Amino acid sequence: MAIEKITSLQNPRVKQLVRLRDRRPRDEAGVFLVEGYRELRRALDKGVRPTELYVAPEWFQGENEPALITQAEAAGAQVFELTKAVFAKVAYRERPDGLLAVAPQWRRTLQDLEPILAGSGLNPGSAAPAASAPFLLVVEAIEKPGNLGTLLRGADAAGVQAVIVCDPVTDLFNPNVVRASTGVLFSVPVVVAASAAVRTWLRAKKIRAVVTTPAAQTLYSDENLRGPLAVVMGSEQYGLSDFWLKESDAQVRIPMAGQADSLNVAMAAVITLFEAVRQRGA
Amino acid sequence: MAIEKITSLQNPRVKQLVRLRDRRPRDEAGVFLVEGYRELRRALDKGVRPTELYVAPEWFQGENEPALITQAEAAGAQVFELTKAVFAKVAYRERPDGLLAVAPQWRRTLQDLEPILAGSGLNPGSAAPAASAPFLLVVEAIEKPGNLGTLLRGADAAGVQAVIVCDPVTDLFNPNVVRASTGVLFSVPVVVAASAAVRTWLRAKKIRAVVTTPAAQTLYSDENLRGPLAVVMGSEQYGLSDFWLKESDAQVRIPMAGQADSLNVAMAAVITLFEAVRQRGA
Repeated sequence: MAIEKITSLQNPRVKQLVRLRDRRPRDEAGVFLVEGYRELRRALDKGVRPTELYVAPEWFQGENEPALITQAEAAGAQVFELTKAVFAKVAYRERPDGLLAVAPQWRRTLQDLEPILAGSGLNPGSAAPAASAPFLLVVEAIEKPGNLGTLLRGADAAGVQAVIVCDPVTDLFNPNVVRASTGVLFSVPVVVAASAAVRTWLRAKKIRAVVTTPAAQTLYSDENLRGPLAVVMGSEQYGLSDFWLKESDAQVRIPMAGQADSLNVAMAAVITLFEAVRQRGA
Repeated sequence: MAIEKITSLQNPRVKQLVRLRDRRPRDEAGVFLVEGYRELRRALDKGVRPTELYVAPEWFQGENEPALITQAEAAGAQVFELTKAVFAKVAYRERPDGLLAVAPQWRRTLQDLEPILAGSGLNPGSAAPAASAPFLLVVEAIEKPGNLGTLLRGADAAGVQAVIVCDPVTDLFNPNVVRASTGVLFSVPVVVAASAAVRTWLRAKKIRAVVTTPAAQTLYSDENLRGPLAVVMGSEQYGLSDFWLKESDAQVRIPMAGQADSLNVAMAAVITLFEAVRQRGA
């Protein structure tokens, strides 16, 4: 296939790529950016189908880029070759590696989770063992894209079936979420929804909402974290809202030996999730 | 006290502050940089005594800076006032807050840990309960300053008595360690030493070295993590060296449900340390 070359910083595609770093143009176009070899490979491996791929061989760091480009073309991407200077302009990273794709956004709803949970003991009548009962992470109003990406990694490592993001301040397709998640965004099902809708849905599905708050009496490790479970984490700055504190099925705290802010939200999440993994005997 | 004003980018102090971002000038001068209100406050609260404090009121973000400057002066700091432009030059951060101090580095040795551990059941004859037995984090060859800072935070939250950094690639006084540790660097005792010396010392003190490696048979939560314990973590990229794998008292792994690299070294550390906290009943 003939590859179109872009050598001018004034090219409209170049301008659009720069615009896509911001949320509004991203949401208007319904697309997002996937930058970097590792991220693009993982996106393609997980079935993401980029519509455009921008490459700059002068920035390539290895020898596997041509194979990846072929894979992207096979998935339907139109390929453009950029000069080193033009790529430096469109790259989000300080040290680009010559690969930047545009792919369609997706949306998952709470209803989309039902088939995912169906095999995991969601039906009250099923005799699924504790290890395979619904196991979710719910995060509220996360502000920093890097934290959201790191939370997704921790949730992936713990083996949750999905992450539910309530009332987010950052959007899922921010380039720093893509990057910090190291590709987990492409594999772990993520739903964005309002807190009230999530609470109602959890209750309907008989999934316990266990919230973490420093004010709780019960240690997280003394709580029963088996069975259908949603671990609920608050925002970095303000913790959980009154809504979730009031609507929780249980409140737990992590014992803190040092400075009050030594555990960030991603660490608190991973500690709680892995205690659940331990109890569930996965 | 009269405050000296610095208005020129050519001032030798300005040039030296920029040089102190690099390790060699830092080590030659035996000092390091403490930038930012929160970090400086914590440093002063923990007994760090800055020799110089550079301030730029035009960058101040709150109203408490004068009190902090008074506290730094009382601790012995000479204060310099910089113009907005000059401060922007010396600031390490993208969004400076008008406070940058120079403070003396310190060094702790393995011997310095003995009084710290003395009250914690280090003596084999003591009847200290498990919760207060020696509890250490050992990290090997950490490369990224941000990871080292985050590891210090996790260790602080778990209540280890000290962190031992073996054969580090990054140095303890890198500005990104200071920043990522959110001040824990000033409170948790940190020793830098060679792996072989650390291994010998742990053995002499009858402290078990439990290493984490994906190749281990035993789950971290199935291992006995009570009693005198050093949790040993490898580098981000290469994991633990053969030395530590061979010299371990036990090898454990964290169960991984998702992508192989979903847990970074700081997360793996905090999961293992908090399982130890749980078992030790702290």
